[in-house]
Amino acid sequence: MWRELLPVGRHPDSHGYRRFAWTGADTECRAWFQEQAETRGLTYEIDRNGNQWAWLGDPAQGDAVVTGSHLDSVPDGGAFDGPLGVVSSFAALDELRARQAEFAKPLAIVNFGDEEGARFGLACVGSRLTAGQLTVEQAHRLTDGEGITLPQAMEAAGHDPDGIGADPQRLARIGAFVELHVEQGRSLDLSGDRVGIASAIWPHGRWRFDFRGEANHAGTTRLTDRRDPMLSYAETVLAARREAELAGAVATFGKIAVEPNGVNAIPSLVRGWLDSRAADQESLDQVVGGIEKAAREYAQAHGIALDVVRESFTPVVEFDHALRDELARILGTGTDLKVPVLGTGAGHDAGILSGSIPTAMLFVRNPTGVSHSPAESAAEDDCAAGVLALADVLEGLACR
Amino acid sequence: MWRELLPVGRHPDSHGYRRFAWTGADTECRAWFQEQAETRGLTYEIDRNGNQWAWLGDPAQGDAVVTGSHLDSVPDGGAFDGPLGVVSSFAALDELRARQAEFAKPLAIVNFGDEEGARFGLACVGSRLTAGQLTVEQAHRLTDGEGITLPQAMEAAGHDPDGIGADPQRLARIGAFVELHVEQGRSLDLSGDRVGIASAIWPHGRWRFDFRGEANHAGTTRLTDRRDPMLSYAETVLAARREAELAGAVATFGKIAVEPNGVNAIPSLVRGWLDSRAADQESLDQVVGGIEKAAREYAQAHGIALDVVRESFTPVVEFDHALRDELARILGTGTDLKVPVLGTGAGHDAGILSGSIPTAMLFVRNPTGVSHSPAESAAEDDCAAGVLALADVLEGLACR
Repeated sequence: MWRELLPVGRHPDSHGYRRFAWTGADTECRAWFQEQAETRGLTYEIDRNGNQWAWLGDPAQGDAVVTGSHLDSVPDGGAFDGPLGVVSSFAALDELRARQAEFAKPLAIVNFGDEEGARFGLACVGSRLTAGQLTVEQAHRLTDGEGITLPQAMEAAGHDPDGIGADPQRLARIGAFVELHVEQGRSLDLSGDRVGIASAIWPHGRWRFDFRGEANHAGTTRLTDRRDPMLSYAETVLAARREAELAGAVATFGKIAVEPNGVNAIPSLVRGWLDSRAADQESLDQVVGGIEKAAREYAQAHGIALDVVRESFTPVVEFDHALRDELARILGTGTDLKVPVLGTGAGHDAGILSGSIPTAMLFVRNPTGVSHSPAESAAEDDCAAGVLALADVLEGLACR
Repeated sequence: MWRELLPVGRHPDSHGYRRFAWTGADTECRAWFQEQAETRGLTYEIDRNGNQWAWLGDPAQGDAVVTGSHLDSVPDGGAFDGPLGVVSSFAALDELRARQAEFAKPLAIVNFGDEEGARFGLACVGSRLTAGQLTVEQAHRLTDGEGITLPQAMEAAGHDPDGIGADPQRLARIGAFVELHVEQGRSLDLSGDRVGIASAIWPHGRWRFDFRGEANHAGTTRLTDRRDPMLSYAETVLAARREAELAGAVATFGKIAVEPNGVNAIPSLVRGWLDSRAADQESLDQVVGGIEKAAREYAQAHGIALDVVRESFTPVVEFDHALRDELARILGTGTDLKVPVLGTGAGHDAGILSGSIPTAMLFVRNPTGVSHSPAESAAEDDCAAGVLALADVLEGLACR
């Protein structure tokens, strides 16, 4: 099952995955999902927002137990982020059938569309639409780097975009959602555990810094006559690192766009995107506020105009405590908590849905902590332990 | 004449020019050149390297006087850099005909192809090929951002690339080349002169700095586990400014390419291009050496691998002293030097050709000094003064 997915959307040079929403590689992954569902005799459906579902039992019965993740990737992402959760879901169902488990509740496996936001710049579009956290009007304004809108991309991939929007009836039928995911850090590696349970997702956001100066000839313009926005950008990148260190948070400038971006031209515009996350809201405010203050001082000193726009923001997500404790009880096989509980700086569909339904997450050990890179990895034994843990959880939740 | 060229290749949003070699806008400019030549009864020809020539008199006679410049632009360039020299050449010829000047030597107006190097990354391709400073093999390796090679681009624009290469016979027929250009600095504005004569072109070059770290998730990777090349890049940008200030030179990071360039991904690669120029070789060595030393220290401290590649380099160009003095004599109408002589940090076709034939340059005042930007400007009066100065020079050189 795992091996079939490995070649899809893998770039021959970087060996990273480029499975962007509603592209050819994404369509191939989705065809694979449908095949897995049908091979197992599950009822396959695509919801109004393009998320894929595979049902065992009658959804109308309600109080369903749902598991799954996503199949799309960041640019040059690794093999596990997303697909491990979907593949493990099917494998856990196979395990439960081998155990001859009797299901008391409907069970579903889901593939949420466009989780990474690599193409349209907004993460978790499929689950946001379903949960009503992204309006139809906002979704219509999402545009990729080529100027193609989200509805156009959906239509080109064969999905009718007219039906997109909040789907409360679907969510009302779900009693619990559990997402398994490769850990995107080294906590489990450091503690020596194969599997962990999520406590919370750090508050996080994206801010766009537009530094506007004056385009000019790089060879003939005296330094004193320049208004070079690259200098203010560079100083801000270093300020971001300092502020994050002070607050025990993270802050990253990983994306940049420069105009005119010519070797012999002083830029007129340097646009840098800041990604920042912290354990709590106060720390995050302190970090981003500190970076913006520093950036304004640098910009003023160089005659640069600065605009800072918050492009997205997700407050702290505390996963449902009762469901979390239930998972700990199931996996701890009694009163001792054998599985560590850990926070994470990454956003997930489970975080989006936690505002609507009880959600929980399982993490599988990542020996290097590397994520969003072709070097991302997980040991086969640990993946197998993840499948068994997920099977135990689904059995405990759906087969009582 | 000037107004016809203004709309060609102008971007509707930036109002800057995007006349890249062998593209549609370049083809339009070239058609305009041919029309200007034919309207004036000049003999029009394209040489083996795609440079356009308009001849008055028989080239075979030898000792020709040639003037002209280029019509292509940097990304979002201004209206004057290049076209002012070509338009002024035709206008100067009109002026000489109005004066009923009698030509003792053949005269030509030239439009050199691909002076800015905006598409293939190497400046002055047309004159370099002609002068034998770019070999056919090197030219075949030039590739644009889409992976199209220079020969492919030439062929697509209707020029046979099989004939490109050094053209010593053509150069042997030329006795003097004079290029008029808008000044790319504020020297004439500060001295209060409309027109100046070039003394030398500063030595200059382009260096590519590849900072390689490790792609990783921007939300979940602890600061201490990161190898983020953006930090070393930022420190190097600031070091470049400091080194240039110390040496009285210029150093600019104006172009950058980041991989994977995702908001939530620590980059694996930050590639920055340095443009640096100084009045003499020793100063330039000091600046670039200082920047590279600082970059290596920063990279080592962050666990970043650094490669520095010199992509192009042009040593100092001293324009022909006899021709320069002749221009000063003509424009000074006697023994007093009324026209200032100034150095420049910009490269030009005249600089390339100065290794093969006597060349000189005239500069027209630029009131803001702004260059390679839509804000580049020159007053109409100053342009007219430039045309008259060029007419005087051509009359003095060709009509004795």
